[in-house]
Amino acid sequence: MKLMRVGPLGQEGPALLDKNGKIRDLSTHVTDIGGADISPEGLAKIAALDAASLPEIQADRIGACVAGTGKFICIGLNYSDHAAESGMAVPPEPVIFMKATSAICGPNDDVLIPRKSEKTDWEVELGVVIGKTAKYVSEAEALDYVAGYCVSHDVSERGFQTERSGQWTKGKSCDTFGPIGPWLVTKDEIADPQNLGMWLTVNGEKMQDGTSKTMVYGVAFLVSYLSQFMSLQPGDIISTGTPPGVGMGMKPPRYLKPGDVVELGIEGLGTQKQTFKADV
Amino acid sequence: MKLMRVGPLGQEGPALLDKNGKIRDLSTHVTDIGGADISPEGLAKIAALDAASLPEIQADRIGACVAGTGKFICIGLNYSDHAAESGMAVPPEPVIFMKATSAICGPNDDVLIPRKSEKTDWEVELGVVIGKTAKYVSEAEALDYVAGYCVSHDVSERGFQTERSGQWTKGKSCDTFGPIGPWLVTKDEIADPQNLGMWLTVNGEKMQDGTSKTMVYGVAFLVSYLSQFMSLQPGDIISTGTPPGVGMGMKPPRYLKPGDVVELGIEGLGTQKQTFKADV
Repeated sequence: MKLMRVGPLGQEGPALLDKNGKIRDLSTHVTDIGGADISPEGLAKIAALDAASLPEIQADRIGACVAGTGKFICIGLNYSDHAAESGMAVPPEPVIFMKATSAICGPNDDVLIPRKSEKTDWEVELGVVIGKTAKYVSEAEALDYVAGYCVSHDVSERGFQTERSGQWTKGKSCDTFGPIGPWLVTKDEIADPQNLGMWLTVNGEKMQDGTSKTMVYGVAFLVSYLSQFMSLQPGDIISTGTPPGVGMGMKPPRYLKPGDVVELGIEGLGTQKQTFKADV
Repeated sequence: MKLMRVGPLGQEGPALLDKNGKIRDLSTHVTDIGGADISPEGLAKIAALDAASLPEIQADRIGACVAGTGKFICIGLNYSDHAAESGMAVPPEPVIFMKATSAICGPNDDVLIPRKSEKTDWEVELGVVIGKTAKYVSEAEALDYVAGYCVSHDVSERGFQTERSGQWTKGKSCDTFGPIGPWLVTKDEIADPQNLGMWLTVNGEKMQDGTSKTMVYGVAFLVSYLSQFMSLQPGDIISTGTPPGVGMGMKPPRYLKPGDVVELGIEGLGTQKQTFKADV
């Protein structure tokens, strides 16, 4: 299933995209796309509905595909080629950092370049959405705790991230730096999360063109690994790192300016399109 | 006012501590201690109540003093003496990192030492609770966005934090590593947040005995600073760093083991007491 949230910011309602590309209202069946509604039981309940009988609705705006995210956990340097372009070594175990949940926005919302930013950069990433509380789970059972996948744009301010005193979260957490969606695609639709093409363009020019095949630490490993340090809860999102092609790695580096349009997508998970604007 | 949340985990209700030390039920007046209820308007509404007329209740358990925290932001190395004992320089601007909100627990709940932990450590900190959305605010107006203060115990696993591949969040986010409370003390009761005594004992032995006077970056500066990078929202907590005396800084280092009892407090903000247990 392709689950989504549509409506004005802060007033999104639950919906699904049917097999014919029509958006169907789920609001009389679930409260939102998040929490218990994306548990294995919650998803089974939605799957049992007759999609064709649900009211068709128009979406002027698509919101983030998950509601009530408590943790937005990112994995750093998780593609060997991206680590190389960043001038950093592949870490001996996953690097994790947090992105503020207040950064989450819809997949096609404008992204605000923060005041004093000179190095706003792009990163297409595979997002993993947790559906069931996971703590100390093994790699073999890890995917049982995953509800599905989504496109995640880990927008990053490199100056804030690396030149403003330790810890990356400062350059990752700005408002609108976390477009999520358009859909939460349930895992039954993704045969292998480690074999998905992913790409990103800036003003139509291809910048990233990779595949989740070259991830250093795969989805099942990451869910198990993270659950050794903290409980993962329904609605939590893991953004699993970016393939090569970010602006910071170009010679000379290239960063986003107001008016730039970024489009990105992952095979089977849909596409995003954002216009970057100054946060005045 | 001293606002609090009492009841079993996940079922806490709002309450206040009156001038005679009695706990009074607020549940017929506010939904919880968090969000709009701790905005300037929300707090004014609670302040207008006649506390003596509210039902007196018993508290078998005190929960975290704030509900619905979206961001739990911590400041690293914010006391010059603590930076020295950690073998690190005072940073040229604040070091910020995130603690998972899933780490938040009540002030007297048991703290779980994670599996494979060998270096679980203590840190008494002044917690600042945001009451109004703050973005790009000046230092002069920053305290207008603060609802009040609380005791925050930034429990830390030093091995996870510093020896397991970059970024501190890994050693800061374990379940129960964020005892908060007992009270959200509204800012009108705290004449000067930069002049509060703070202390911590392990099994009755004094380990930390400091004052918020020696903070490198004060509360108003931090609120303004953080708001340049991201919106601060009602219920967000800023844990402002710890004074000297953590286990990592001792020669030899000393860490917590199952059965240890940690007590901590800050002048005017109450005390916490936790028994540390193995997370089996």
